[in-house]
Amino acid sequence: MIHYEDMPQGDHVLLGPVTVSADEIVAFAQRYDPQPFHLSDAGAKDTYFGSLAASGWHTAALTMKLMMTGRDQPLAILGSPGFDNLRWQRPVYPGDELRASVTVTDRRVSKSRPEMGLVYLAVETLNENDVAVMRFDSVAMMARRDAGS
Amino acid sequence: MIHYEDMPQGDHVLLGPVTVSADEIVAFAQRYDPQPFHLSDAGAKDTYFGSLAASGWHTAALTMKLMMTGRDQPLAILGSPGFDNLRWQRPVYPGDELRASVTVTDRRVSKSRPEMGLVYLAVETLNENDVAVMRFDSVAMMARRDAGS
Repeated sequence: MIHYEDMPQGDHVLLGPVTVSADEIVAFAQRYDPQPFHLSDAGAKDTYFGSLAASGWHTAALTMKLMMTGRDQPLAILGSPGFDNLRWQRPVYPGDELRASVTVTDRRVSKSRPEMGLVYLAVETLNENDVAVMRFDSVAMMARRDAGS
Repeated sequence: MIHYEDMPQGDHVLLGPVTVSADEIVAFAQRYDPQPFHLSDAGAKDTYFGSLAASGWHTAALTMKLMMTGRDQPLAILGSPGFDNLRWQRPVYPGDELRASVTVTDRRVSKSRPEMGLVYLAVETLNENDVAVMRFDSVAMMARRDAGS
């Protein structure tokens, strides 16, 4: 497993791709974000999107998938307190191939729980044209290797 | 439809509930966030969560569902640039009934696109015990009524 020690400041990986289909975009939107531009081409025609586009929360979930499954080994993540500065920069359309560019911006051992460390990540989601479609800053609570697990 | 004019500063609504099942928690996690504590009780047993708990991105998506479908009429939302200060405060377990407490903290008409306004929202997701499980600050781009649509 990938532990706290394996993610020094400056570490950078490009993960993916994952492709999203029109069927998956519509299914996600029907359950979680049923706005017209996430449900059909017709509903998106006269909007900013122009044609069917993924919910931003769907793009975020796909980015999480890349972060969790895109490395050779699983991450020893214990949880996350949350995210900051999430921005949806461009639409995501059916067939887009998404990759996640993940950079460790800082890290520190927890004072209250020295068996774990906090790893600060800057995450950018790119499409197949290397255009950024989303970004956010994240914190992961990660197990230290010498603490077991 | 609910337009910019219908959401003055201080407006507050409590939306929901929506209930999340173990099957849905596992299906979401298998596709988007396959960490052990989101996949089975056994995988969560020796973690912070203690038993199967929803992905934080799943809780966010369910909160989006409440925001989009919880009012009597649809919202005239044109899109959103993103969100800030998302915090997962407590786990969400199978059977939890989630509601979204949504408050308009500020709003203004767009200078570059006067046919729309920006509505700033503070969103808190509560469980059936009125305990906050998640919060974030959001911005919605909303159509003005006198601009049509």
